[in-house]
Amino acid sequence: MQEIVNDIANSMARETERGQVADYIPELAAIDPNQFAISIALPNGEVYSAGCAQKPFSIQSISKVFSLTLALGKIGDNIWNRVGREPSGDPFNSIVQLEHEHGIPRNPFINAGAIAVVDAIMMGHQPKESLAEIIQFVRYIADDNSIGIDEKVALSELATTHRNASLAHFMKSFGNIEHDIDKLLGVYCHQCSIAMSCEQLAKSGLFLVSDGMNESSGYRVVSAQRARRINSLMLMCGHYDGSGEFAYRVGLPGKSGVGGGILAIAPGKASIAVWSPGLDKIGNSKLGTLALERLVEHTGWSVF
Amino acid sequence: MQEIVNDIANSMARETERGQVADYIPELAAIDPNQFAISIALPNGEVYSAGCAQKPFSIQSISKVFSLTLALGKIGDNIWNRVGREPSGDPFNSIVQLEHEHGIPRNPFINAGAIAVVDAIMMGHQPKESLAEIIQFVRYIADDNSIGIDEKVALSELATTHRNASLAHFMKSFGNIEHDIDKLLGVYCHQCSIAMSCEQLAKSGLFLVSDGMNESSGYRVVSAQRARRINSLMLMCGHYDGSGEFAYRVGLPGKSGVGGGILAIAPGKASIAVWSPGLDKIGNSKLGTLALERLVEHTGWSVF
Amino acid sequence: MQEIVNDIANSMARETERGQVADYIPELAAIDPNQFAISIALPNGEVYSAGCAQKPFSIQSISKVFSLTLALGKIGDNIWNRVGREPSGDPFNSIVQLEHEHGIPRNPFINAGAIAVVDAIMMGHQPKESLAEIIQFVRYIADDNSIGIDEKVALSELATTHRNASLAHFMKSFGNIEHDIDKLLGVYCHQCSIAMSCEQLAKSGLFLVSDGMNESSGYRVVSAQRARRINSLMLMCGHYDGSGEFAYRVGLPGKSGVGGGILAIAPGKASIAVWSPGLDKIGNSKLGTLALERLVEHTGWSVF
Amino acid sequence: MQEIVNDIANSMARETERGQVADYIPELAAIDPNQFAISIALPNGEVYSAGCAQKPFSIQSISKVFSLTLALGKIGDNIWNRVGREPSGDPFNSIVQLEHEHGIPRNPFINAGAIAVVDAIMMGHQPKESLAEIIQFVRYIADDNSIGIDEKVALSELATTHRNASLAHFMKSFGNIEHDIDKLLGVYCHQCSIAMSCEQLAKSGLFLVSDGMNESSGYRVVSAQRARRINSLMLMCGHYDGSGEFAYRVGLPGKSGVGGGILAIAPGKASIAVWSPGLDKIGNSKLGTLALERLVEHTGWSVF
Repeated sequence: MQEIVNDIANSMARETERGQVADYIPELAAIDPNQFAISIALPNGEVYSAGCAQKPFSIQSISKVFSLTLALGKIGDNIWNRVGREPSGDPFNSIVQLEHEHGIPRNPFINAGAIAVVDAIMMGHQPKESLAEIIQFVRYIADDNSIGIDEKVALSELATTHRNASLAHFMKSFGNIEHDIDKLLGVYCHQCSIAMSCEQLAKSGLFLVSDGMNESSGYRVVSAQRARRINSLMLMCGHYDGSGEFAYRVGLPGKSGVGGGILAIAPGKASIAVWSPGLDKIGNSKLGTLALERLVEHTGWSVF
Repeated sequence: MQEIVNDIANSMARETERGQVADYIPELAAIDPNQFAISIALPNGEVYSAGCAQKPFSIQSISKVFSLTLALGKIGDNIWNRVGREPSGDPFNSIVQLEHEHGIPRNPFINAGAIAVVDAIMMGHQPKESLAEIIQFVRYIADDNSIGIDEKVALSELATTHRNASLAHFMKSFGNIEHDIDKLLGVYCHQCSIAMSCEQLAKSGLFLVSDGMNESSGYRVVSAQRARRINSLMLMCGHYDGSGEFAYRVGLPGKSGVGGGILAIAPGKASIAVWSPGLDKIGNSKLGTLALERLVEHTGWSVF
Repeated sequence: MQEIVNDIANSMARETERGQVADYIPELAAIDPNQFAISIALPNGEVYSAGCAQKPFSIQSISKVFSLTLALGKIGDNIWNRVGREPSGDPFNSIVQLEHEHGIPRNPFINAGAIAVVDAIMMGHQPKESLAEIIQFVRYIADDNSIGIDEKVALSELATTHRNASLAHFMKSFGNIEHDIDKLLGVYCHQCSIAMSCEQLAKSGLFLVSDGMNESSGYRVVSAQRARRINSLMLMCGHYDGSGEFAYRVGLPGKSGVGGGILAIAPGKASIAVWSPGLDKIGNSKLGTLALERLVEHTGWSVF
Repeated sequence: MQEIVNDIANSMARETERGQVADYIPELAAIDPNQFAISIALPNGEVYSAGCAQKPFSIQSISKVFSLTLALGKIGDNIWNRVGREPSGDPFNSIVQLEHEHGIPRNPFINAGAIAVVDAIMMGHQPKESLAEIIQFVRYIADDNSIGIDEKVALSELATTHRNASLAHFMKSFGNIEHDIDKLLGVYCHQCSIAMSCEQLAKSGLFLVSDGMNESSGYRVVSAQRARRINSLMLMCGHYDGSGEFAYRVGLPGKSGVGGGILAIAPGKASIAVWSPGLDKIGNSKLGTLALERLVEHTGWSVF
């Protein structure tokens, strides 16, 4: 396994087509596109890494998997009254679908859906409490209390979050948002600014590998059925309008972020985190996807 | 296994909410909604069935899996120049997406995409030859030469196929259809009118269970990689705008038809066919989906 | 003329199908739907009225004509870099078009366009100054210093303006809004809450009757060409997605508001204001439209 | 008047930005873009022309005004059950709106609407009879029996009319088309291929100048109300997605065709035809629009 990850890392180092780094905030725009990391966490606690796998990066939309899991724990299937479970066929920040479907986002992994999920988590809490709850939950599932938020990224996000504000106000006009938009986006932007290394990220996905149980830490996070359903949502919707492509090429449930990270789950086998900041046109890590494709070729871990 | 399928069939017989039978042609509208069948084909050749599993029904859109497989065999990845690989987020017969994306259908399982696939199969052939090739291919993968076309259904389809004609002409205006529309729709409507029993249908899916090889008949149909990719497309796009729901509830690659059939693949384990004519609002078999959900609960066959 | 307006008012009093009063804020929902008023202002200063033509009502979107005129005076044709001149084919608060056309609203009379116009007016001013400028301008063109804002309506609007906030943030994400959204919507909602009577409203439109000159007050408001162009925009886009219907039935440039008012211009002949709070499905005054249709039948004032 | 048209023709001859000639059929693509013609027909029978005003050109979509007038004569307001009266906000051949509004085209001047109008005209007739009726009607309103169809253009149109076939089949799937699509498009394409000179075209519009009466020929074509309503539709929808722009710049009801012609009506004053084959991006004659803008500046004929 270590040999495989080394091979992949070496191979990625030689790639010249590395995609474009996200440039909508200076903190992401300044990141060196030549970085790459991969970590594979096994249920038995072993972790195999290559590249800068201890270096924290902004997990961005990968956090949506964690907040969805948290919201399901808090309000259960009621969350599905506020957000759907279908691929959207539209870019991650599209508002067209919201207008056609009366303020109900297509799924919890497009921005509108993730904002509605955070709104559900906030019920009965102050923003700081909600944020603390989210970060505590991420530390818990990754079994690592050192995980934190990159405050500079969070503030930059907040200053440029007009498109998300538009989505949130739109949903609120349909009664699908409870909280004050500024507070809601404060929590949302901070959640997206959680910084994790590939090793931390890989470990955080272990509960999705083993039917809801992190066998390494001994924590049961969710039921077996719920773990499988979260995996299904990741496969169907985890890469925005490139989800079909990711399923076709990689064949694993996965969630990407514009920071260049991807968390992928091989059910029963391993949790994998990859990071490379350059993105393809749809906003998914270019080398991250390629590395996962190579990994699946070597291991046969495709769910298909 | 036989006990499980018996239990499921008994349980389905007691269901009162059976959905609505497709009513756009008299041949489908007249079918008794109280019917149910299930067949599970294992790679070793064993088949477990319950209900009217020898009774042929109109496979309709399930045929799109077979024609895609055939087209991939004929022109390989060139097919992806003419049709995409993403869920559409729209109903099966929507034309909106085609206008926004210059006549390239989102995937091969919506009507527009399947029509483009048939057009690719027809290259260099007369309509009758193409149809013969398709039916021969289905007989080959199911290892059953008795499979045929329900001509009455085909003629009814042809007489009411204006929406498909619209899709085909639209694509032709973008240069994405080669053949005469009348001939093309003739082949397409006949393909959709293939009649198969659940046992035949389950056996036809065996090549997708075992990495492209029908282990029961000994035929290699496609490469391992291609089999996995077809499965990924079935999971992502096989139930139209209800694909996310099917992945969430059942967790298997599957393809439905408005005749009430569903073909589902549990990779490495089994090929499953269910049939019950009543449809949900999106057009997928209501009891068929429920039966598969029960089966996966009993067997743990979810890919997630 | 007095006889005609009396006849119309009497006829309207007998109508039983009066439409639905706007109900999104309590101040509008509480208005008695049985009210009707009409005023016709002639260039020579004569005004013919019937019904409660001195009673102020909330002019709502009719104010968009005045803010557009003001913005044209301030930045001239540069306004057309930020807003288009085509009918939208969508409801007044639709955001779909904005996404398809990169944050440029179709025209200055849909909500998004009117918000962009207010943003242009605010350039270099504090919100209170901008609001004062708008109200001063309305008093000037109507030659009536008693015109003011209904503060209760304004505050109610502001409290429920999420859809407009969504539109504004959306445009800001494309760089088409300069100012802080809260301040911008503060000005916008106050502008929409200007209260005017039919007599005041009819007089305010006189500059559009006589090629930019209010012949009654002697003020030149805009050039002849600009007056004609504002009229053309009113005809094309003044009744949202019912503009074609209004042109077909009435045949005059006009602008409606959800308060139930309509300002219509018969170029060279008269400025007409009607008010009846009940709206049709698209949001235009039901009896107001009918009254104008009758008036044009009697006077032959259609531009066609 | 003769001086004005001469001046305009001279000025147009000096223009170097002449737009792009329509290139979807060879017959239109081959036309010399340096041609220009203008004719102004007055109710008293006088005609003022400049440029090649006797040269016939393909009137294309201008024919939609005539077929609408004919359909209104045959089935009256029933036509509005099958086609709307609102600007579409979409290109002339868009199908998106049709899907959103259940097969009812937005107005009679986009392609889908015009096809539905022809379908209404065909009721109870063979295609040849319908075509004869249309051409007879055009000869009648223009008072000129020499007007005919350019058969080569018609056959070229028919061979490439897939987009229109798509629109027609789409409407038929919603029950909004009665006739066989091939026959319907045969009539439609021939209607679009009517060839007229600017002089003939200007004379054909005289009934819209004088409240439904061609005062020159003495024929009453439609009622005064209907003439005004046709004018309103021309203003609102006559230049596709550039109708707002045309109203803003020219201020007259008008209908353009991709052959480069425009028919414009100055109610009570004149019927004007211009022709120049180069089109702007939306598909309206570039110099034709400019010439009309100049004419209105000189004459003050804007309806606003």
